[in-house]
Amino acid sequence: MSGTLYGIGLGPGDPELMTLKAHRLISSARVVAYPAPDTGESFARSIAASTIPLDAREIPIVVPMRVERFPAQEIYDKAAAEIAEVLTAGLDVVTLCEGDPFFYGSFMYLFERLCDRFDIEVVPGVTSLTACAAQLQRPLTSRNDVLTVIPGPLPDAAIEQKIDEAQAVAIMKVGRHLSRLRALLDRMGLLEQAGYVERASLAKQKVHRLIDLEADTAPYFSMILIYKGDEAWTLPPSYSS
Amino acid sequence: MSGTLYGIGLGPGDPELMTLKAHRLISSARVVAYPAPDTGESFARSIAASTIPLDAREIPIVVPMRVERFPAQEIYDKAAAEIAEVLTAGLDVVTLCEGDPFFYGSFMYLFERLCDRFDIEVVPGVTSLTACAAQLQRPLTSRNDVLTVIPGPLPDAAIEQKIDEAQAVAIMKVGRHLSRLRALLDRMGLLEQAGYVERASLAKQKVHRLIDLEADTAPYFSMILIYKGDEAWTLPPSYSS
Repeated sequence: MSGTLYGIGLGPGDPELMTLKAHRLISSARVVAYPAPDTGESFARSIAASTIPLDAREIPIVVPMRVERFPAQEIYDKAAAEIAEVLTAGLDVVTLCEGDPFFYGSFMYLFERLCDRFDIEVVPGVTSLTACAAQLQRPLTSRNDVLTVIPGPLPDAAIEQKIDEAQAVAIMKVGRHLSRLRALLDRMGLLEQAGYVERASLAKQKVHRLIDLEADTAPYFSMILIYKGDEAWTLPPSYSS
Repeated sequence: MSGTLYGIGLGPGDPELMTLKAHRLISSARVVAYPAPDTGESFARSIAASTIPLDAREIPIVVPMRVERFPAQEIYDKAAAEIAEVLTAGLDVVTLCEGDPFFYGSFMYLFERLCDRFDIEVVPGVTSLTACAAQLQRPLTSRNDVLTVIPGPLPDAAIEQKIDEAQAVAIMKVGRHLSRLRALLDRMGLLEQAGYVERASLAKQKVHRLIDLEADTAPYFSMILIYKGDEAWTLPPSYSS
């Protein structure tokens, strides 16, 4: 009897935003896998660090940070093979995922390699989308709003068209695209309706109106939310510095 | 010193999909508010039932179920006044919210009435969006997909246009619009790429390919996810009945 592969959403970063189910499954895990950069700490592992049993076997899936647009196929092939071996031996494998495994998550690269052969259970997590809205103190969507979620790496023309068509807009993965996106929103007259959050829910979190933001670069985990047509929106005073 | 108003996301229904933070705040709450129908049980309260302290004061916000399109303003005025009185007396109020408070949530009606006078903290929760994707065993978004979230009550022409423009699509609040939406997706040739989930994560959950679904009506908490261009998508065999 093979083990089950769990894809566990850990939420945006604050360990307290992990679900009770994630906490239970990680606490009792014998084998834990997670994505890790080739230098520095794994963000996913850091969220769950105090919950991982000391004697658990750990399988870091080391993805070089310069691989941005496409996952290195061989890296996931190798990780999937290592995990398949553990599952075949009858042990469960708990995979730690930032946010939610199926919301722009790298878990899909394991999922697509293993779903035909093993039982897989995905435990959904809090996404950065609603974590950022909570920090900006503004509902993301209400009533019958259409919400459009746009990856920041897309080209200007595509982003502009999507924003034109949308009501509530979230731009994910802002990162090194910050200056370009800010210039685009300025041209579209939307700068004052845009909120910016980086590292939502973490101690190093930053929350600003986009128009007040002085940086030109942003970490990968950053987001812009646009409240089209809601010119009255302002951040609460506590955030304006 | 006034109390703080908490808007607590409880996730899609399974109490284990509550966050650790939600669990901590509810466990120690002295005053708990929640939306409730005029007949039957409050869904939000039912998710948190075993966590609410026995001696907590409860403030049900009773919204008649026939009020579908607009919240009854007077009901929220009255609830906000009752909650404001508690906050002014220095007590915190923990408001229970299905899913996430700022993702199509009724918490916004309290938020907009009280945010100028009191400290409000929103605790994000797992949304039905990713809970349904987990159940359908298919990533919601990957790489640079644009995701569009569409409320089912919108008219056909608006929905058709949004779907035409989108890659990953979620249609929320399917409910009594099921037959109409199914006919629309059939005309658009998308029926086989659509998954249907109702009451995600609850014991009464239903998961189907939309094309296999025999019902003509759905509960309010139901969703259609469309995997445009992914004709290979099928539900795992365990769901096909």
